[in-house]
Amino acid sequence: MRTLRPTMLRFLRPRSQLSTRSQHLLARTLFTQTSSTSAKALTADKLNPRLLEAQYAVRGELVLKSMEMKKDLESGNSTLPFKSIIACNIGNPQEVGQSPISFPRQVLALCTCPELLNNAAVINSMPSDVVARAQKYLKSVPSGTGAYSESKGIQVVRDEIATFITNRDGGIPANPDHIFITDGASPAVQMSLQAVIAHENVGIMIPIPQYPLYSAAIAMNGGNAVSYYLDEAADWGLSVSELQRSLDEARAKNVECRAIAIINPGNPTGQVMSRKEMEGVVQFCYDNGLVLMADEVYQENIWMKDQIFISFKKVLREMEMKGTIEAGETELLSFHSISKGFFGECGRRGGYVEFVNIEENTLEQMYKMASISLCSNLDGQLTMGLMVQPPVEGEPSYKQYIEEKTNILESLQRRANKIVNALNELEGVTCNTTQGALYAFPQIQLPQGAVDRASELGKPPDTYYCLELLEATGIVVVPGSGFGQVDGTWHFRTTILPQEENFDDVIERMTNFHQEFLAKHQ
Amino acid sequence: MRTLRPTMLRFLRPRSQLSTRSQHLLARTLFTQTSSTSAKALTADKLNPRLLEAQYAVRGELVLKSMEMKKDLESGNSTLPFKSIIACNIGNPQEVGQSPISFPRQVLALCTCPELLNNAAVINSMPSDVVARAQKYLKSVPSGTGAYSESKGIQVVRDEIATFITNRDGGIPANPDHIFITDGASPAVQMSLQAVIAHENVGIMIPIPQYPLYSAAIAMNGGNAVSYYLDEAADWGLSVSELQRSLDEARAKNVECRAIAIINPGNPTGQVMSRKEMEGVVQFCYDNGLVLMADEVYQENIWMKDQIFISFKKVLREMEMKGTIEAGETELLSFHSISKGFFGECGRRGGYVEFVNIEENTLEQMYKMASISLCSNLDGQLTMGLMVQPPVEGEPSYKQYIEEKTNILESLQRRANKIVNALNELEGVTCNTTQGALYAFPQIQLPQGAVDRASELGKPPDTYYCLELLEATGIVVVPGSGFGQVDGTWHFRTTILPQEENFDDVIERMTNFHQEFLAKHQ
Repeated sequence: MRTLRPTMLRFLRPRSQLSTRSQHLLARTLFTQTSSTSAKALTADKLNPRLLEAQYAVRGELVLKSMEMKKDLESGNSTLPFKSIIACNIGNPQEVGQSPISFPRQVLALCTCPELLNNAAVINSMPSDVVARAQKYLKSVPSGTGAYSESKGIQVVRDEIATFITNRDGGIPANPDHIFITDGASPAVQMSLQAVIAHENVGIMIPIPQYPLYSAAIAMNGGNAVSYYLDEAADWGLSVSELQRSLDEARAKNVECRAIAIINPGNPTGQVMSRKEMEGVVQFCYDNGLVLMADEVYQENIWMKDQIFISFKKVLREMEMKGTIEAGETELLSFHSISKGFFGECGRRGGYVEFVNIEENTLEQMYKMASISLCSNLDGQLTMGLMVQPPVEGEPSYKQYIEEKTNILESLQRRANKIVNALNELEGVTCNTTQGALYAFPQIQLPQGAVDRASELGKPPDTYYCLELLEATGIVVVPGSGFGQVDGTWHFRTTILPQEENFDDVIERMTNFHQEFLAKHQ
Repeated sequence: MRTLRPTMLRFLRPRSQLSTRSQHLLARTLFTQTSSTSAKALTADKLNPRLLEAQYAVRGELVLKSMEMKKDLESGNSTLPFKSIIACNIGNPQEVGQSPISFPRQVLALCTCPELLNNAAVINSMPSDVVARAQKYLKSVPSGTGAYSESKGIQVVRDEIATFITNRDGGIPANPDHIFITDGASPAVQMSLQAVIAHENVGIMIPIPQYPLYSAAIAMNGGNAVSYYLDEAADWGLSVSELQRSLDEARAKNVECRAIAIINPGNPTGQVMSRKEMEGVVQFCYDNGLVLMADEVYQENIWMKDQIFISFKKVLREMEMKGTIEAGETELLSFHSISKGFFGECGRRGGYVEFVNIEENTLEQMYKMASISLCSNLDGQLTMGLMVQPPVEGEPSYKQYIEEKTNILESLQRRANKIVNALNELEGVTCNTTQGALYAFPQIQLPQGAVDRASELGKPPDTYYCLELLEATGIVVVPGSGFGQVDGTWHFRTTILPQEENFDDVIERMTNFHQEFLAKHQ
């Protein structure tokens, strides 16, 4: 039975009233195996163990520490050896200075506050295609952005997305009814995993290194993360033989793999898959009855001149058309987002999932799941529409739109090259080319002294390295252990996002720190 | 082994390449107990059974049918006996004509498109407090609404919410660090249930009738919904003896209750709890170690002149201060939303949960869970700030704000009375007063002929009634079976939201239908 603390005694009710609670606590102590002395239900020993197990390093210990430091810097009394925190931990472009694209923001402002459409001064100051687009949306959705929409998202935007996909894939059609708009790609991935993880023996194949949304959501849903390794020596390439090894190993443990996550372009690894690799994956999914979860949120972020983005939808449909695989059999979920690319509209929370070759009654179940949360936010839905159907040549907004887009993408390309080159200059650091996406993922050889020191502190060596980097420079990166890596290797992920005017400073801080770190632990 | 359909044969690869898939399918057939002939993973027989089990009637069969009818009406070739669909199924005020409050929309437009702040014509057309508020937000969040925020939500809005709660509760303080902003109240409820449902014997006490978010989320998380009944004969009152009966019955079945959901004002039932009832609930939670999940999203919607909204936080803290219960022991989660009240900003998806008496390490786990989805949408976050800290007397926006607010609330009050009175006029229908929230929940006596006909159709009698209502009138309501009800009684939920100019028409359509329905089945 619970021991009441002395400080509680003055709050006690008469003994007769205590009896229910006492009996309950007594019963709990007698009949449960936990040794808790708390009557509370939301305590570490009683919380959902799946939640306790889930890890999400992108916003973990380092970020919390950096938030404290930021407050310290803002207080004006800081003794920290730097003047600013540089958040390289997360693909959050506008947080680190990227300006939003003007066109969508103008349309959204008019949709948010339609009375502006009656203000001649406002209308005269806006390009006419902005006004027309806002009017189109408000006509299609007369209740505006303040009403719940259909749970899949508003029809007009799902139509725009379907048109975008069709054009992107060279005319291969997309069905607007098979597209669900969501509050970013993350909830779409989570709801898909929740549907597919039917019991605790279900396995989901994920790349190592992976974006930890996958491992976290698999843990939260009580499934098994089945690792397949990307080949660092081959520019983070993917081989079917490794997929097969991974699948066989899972089967030997009675884990029933039902889906595979593929991130292309890669996060945290920055590779862009070749068509041949993609065909191998589709064939593998077909052969083994796996749902292909294609995380394609970085499809606009391709940095190599000789590469283009190819969607899994296109590869799959073309293999079906050639008869390489049976038509209609290979299940594909393709995820996209307004948070990456050059929009970088993370805070608006917009994304979609396209369901390909999914049975209608399963789509009805997915609709039901979406409907429990009612709908995704309308502002994010419209932003998705504006991203996939931007101004076209001849429209008044086109020139500014293309300038803004090109400036961002060209600058990101320069930054991708610059950071990879700088990292490769560091002693004991090797970094594959960032072919796409918004990250570099260097491997760092840590001196034994650093490994020992980390061990004393009870931390993985790469976490120790990243914490030291933060404390010395204010730069926040994420340790490789948060993404997974080959045992005995150490990495970190940095975004390529700091603005170009700060870039030399970031690289200089990193370089100086690295040299001092090596010197200190050699 | 799978039988290939003849139409597939032309797509087949050479036999040698088929072998992996064939072997896999053979293995699946041999080693699993399902008789599925599909290699797909997202099929009804393989989906997460918790998803299949979850029900959410508010957007179920009736709504899908009404959406088809709406398309039919829009085609211009409809033969339906009405000209419009009237959505009384969901508390979605702006969908049925409620205008948004001007003040938040103006501020949001400026925050969405800050270049408008440089446009003299825009600034001159806006009240100065609108401009000042937008500037305040943009100063606090320099990256604007396009960057991920802290996962709990931006500090400036959490501070505004804490001030609001403190003022609402007569000075009882709120901690901004214990407030998480979410994409509406629904995700906050879902994440709380996900944390508390630690294993399959955990029970969550829910009212009957209840808002089906609760039963659906409990099913999705694999817990047990433990019903306690509200007393229809006592204006949907709640008694502690009924709570105790429900808890005892659950314990007898080895269900370990860890939380109780209370919806006040009630949904679908419209009652407003008395302070005495609330004290009984808090004491019951204290006595039995239950987390009190207080769904208080309708706190602005109180229609009786002699009633006020009292928060569970205030009742709990005052009981602690009086020594009725130990301080710090009773865990409370209070949910609020921008979707109800008089804002009705459903489409913006904004809500919060305040955690009271929750251990710090549990809050860290909740933070981690929030961080996996990164953050809620910034537009919804700001709308929450604007709702809880509206213009005050003396500010330029105040007059218009109060006028808009008063018009909406007074009109809703008239509509609440009008619909309840009209329902009580119908033969065999009794409806408790809608004291608060946005719904009426009448009980309908159905003639045996209707019960028999429903049975033939394989539907609950109230579902049959609602389907017939829809087909005859275009009015969409939700059957009582979607919320739960005493066995053998039948109800439906209607919102009070149709605009006043349509109200007589709605009531007339309902009345005529009801008479014809009775005549048809007598």
